[in-house]
Amino acid sequence: MRGTVLYGTKDIRFEEVPESKIESPTDAIIRMAATCVCGSDLWPYRGLQPLNGATPMGHEYCGFVEEVGSAVTSVKPGQFVVGSFATSDNTCPHCQFGYQSSCVQREFMTRAQAPYLRVPLADGTLVATSDTPSDDLVPSLLAASDVLGTGWFAADAANVKLGATVVVVGDGAVGLHGVLSAKQMGAERIIAMSRHETRQKLAREFGATDIVTERGDEGVARIKELTNGIGADSVLECVGTPESMQQAIRSTRPGGFVSYVGVPHGVELDGQQLFFSHVHLHGGPAPVRRYLPKLIDLILKGSIQPGKVFDLELPLEKVAEGYAAMDERRAIKALLRP
Amino acid sequence: MRGTVLYGTKDIRFEEVPESKIESPTDAIIRMAATCVCGSDLWPYRGLQPLNGATPMGHEYCGFVEEVGSAVTSVKPGQFVVGSFATSDNTCPHCQFGYQSSCVQREFMTRAQAPYLRVPLADGTLVATSDTPSDDLVPSLLAASDVLGTGWFAADAANVKLGATVVVVGDGAVGLHGVLSAKQMGAERIIAMSRHETRQKLAREFGATDIVTERGDEGVARIKELTNGIGADSVLECVGTPESMQQAIRSTRPGGFVSYVGVPHGVELDGQQLFFSHVHLHGGPAPVRRYLPKLIDLILKGSIQPGKVFDLELPLEKVAEGYAAMDERRAIKALLRP
Repeated sequence: MRGTVLYGTKDIRFEEVPESKIESPTDAIIRMAATCVCGSDLWPYRGLQPLNGATPMGHEYCGFVEEVGSAVTSVKPGQFVVGSFATSDNTCPHCQFGYQSSCVQREFMTRAQAPYLRVPLADGTLVATSDTPSDDLVPSLLAASDVLGTGWFAADAANVKLGATVVVVGDGAVGLHGVLSAKQMGAERIIAMSRHETRQKLAREFGATDIVTERGDEGVARIKELTNGIGADSVLECVGTPESMQQAIRSTRPGGFVSYVGVPHGVELDGQQLFFSHVHLHGGPAPVRRYLPKLIDLILKGSIQPGKVFDLELPLEKVAEGYAAMDERRAIKALLRP
Repeated sequence: MRGTVLYGTKDIRFEEVPESKIESPTDAIIRMAATCVCGSDLWPYRGLQPLNGATPMGHEYCGFVEEVGSAVTSVKPGQFVVGSFATSDNTCPHCQFGYQSSCVQREFMTRAQAPYLRVPLADGTLVATSDTPSDDLVPSLLAASDVLGTGWFAADAANVKLGATVVVVGDGAVGLHGVLSAKQMGAERIIAMSRHETRQKLAREFGATDIVTERGDEGVARIKELTNGIGADSVLECVGTPESMQQAIRSTRPGGFVSYVGVPHGVELDGQQLFFSHVHLHGGPAPVRRYLPKLIDLILKGSIQPGKVFDLELPLEKVAEGYAAMDERRAIKALLRP
């Protein structure tokens, strides 16, 4: 079969790769309904993260179970499934505490930008829908696999509560889903920090009540102004740079909550600044598996339409164009169909 | 009157200082029942924190109200009071959220190692006992002013719950009170990290179930061993060095909670390490005022004896000996009576 491989900075190829097949009794093989390009794929694509040679890409997926290993009991061929970007056995102590993305058996998925995918630990990683979903729901179900689950974790980790004032730093798909999630959790005011018109529009559609275009000291000042000088209750850092982390911490009131869900790149935190900021800080790779049953339910009921972040749809073989469009910010997120 | 002034490294003097008097209508003057030397006083005493010239010292206090400003309504002359090391109006938004140590009018107390003390924002900073406490309760009430309140915040910020497995990093007075607080909050297992026999003994008396003497990689390995490889639910970092912070983060299970309550000195956190550790992090100057009513109540009922951390009692004029004894770890904490 053909799959997506990154060779170097902006050198992404759709080329012949080994077939996906069962390697362990706990594996399943998925026939991809849709996959996509993640903001985090752009770090190595842009040369901002070292590569260990040619690297198969993709970790967001949903589709039909094609085959299962002999030990798999919770999903069966023909079912439609969504899985997390991190595999989990869903039984180890960390999984039991709800941190499936720190499962003792965790593997970070890759190779999902392909027509077939081997999913290890299928029983603990995949969630099946009760029926085959209609085709128009596929983008939303795909979003649950990472960006929605990650945005949801961002809101949860930032302790978003009924009536809260929330700031979302970052207007990528995760940030936008942070807005959607905060709205679902009952936030009263949701301030999206964005300078990009298309994204501002979707942020408003997802529940943002205010848009702030300023950054740095001016961004902080603007948030303080909007919150009567207090700072926000909950701030979701959905970028992963030193600037966005500072923006988040400085926008939060003492005793407020900062979450961070993008892999930090070059972020160093000064202990004394953090100490006197008095914020709560929590983040990490989102335990998407914890939220999948709820998110799938909200999507199937039509309560949320996270698939709206996909503003570009391409045949899988045009994956390179998806990367380029996202890199150049021509698209928020590119969906790929085999 | 005479008071305590730090002139430079290990140069602490008890000498003539200006009288404490009402300067603002919201002030109160306290006649000191007892004051003490704090672990945090040792940073500048040891030359590890820059001094701005001769610096009056002391921020822990309890005693009798001598005089109040015209605007003070909640305490009156003759009452016995305990106050926080940080002043607060107890009405601003941050105070309302329970973060009185980030009050918009906050001042950090100093000059408390003296027979009289001016306390700004008396209404929002001081808590009076209903009756004059017996003399043997004074050390415990004094402890509430900072080290007990800070240990309590450490346990609260680390989310200590019924049945939790807790690690306390640091065997100073704050760490020991972290043990006591975790016990009060229902922790099942409390692992104190200490190499000092007197402190180990008091830790056990306060509720520690295990003592770990190893540090660094070996300390982490020992905690993992004691927790079936999982890590602790809650870890209280009560020192403020890079080593103790690493010890705390690495001893915590994914999804667990790290609190840090000592002013960090030289602590830098790597964003990516923190991200993949999956811990919650919260700390800062303890909002002691939030806890004072409850802590005073527990002390007066005899439920806790935090005053046991004072293993050296000196007349106030011997304050220099108190610093020396703590610096050389001959004493856990030195109480000073005028």
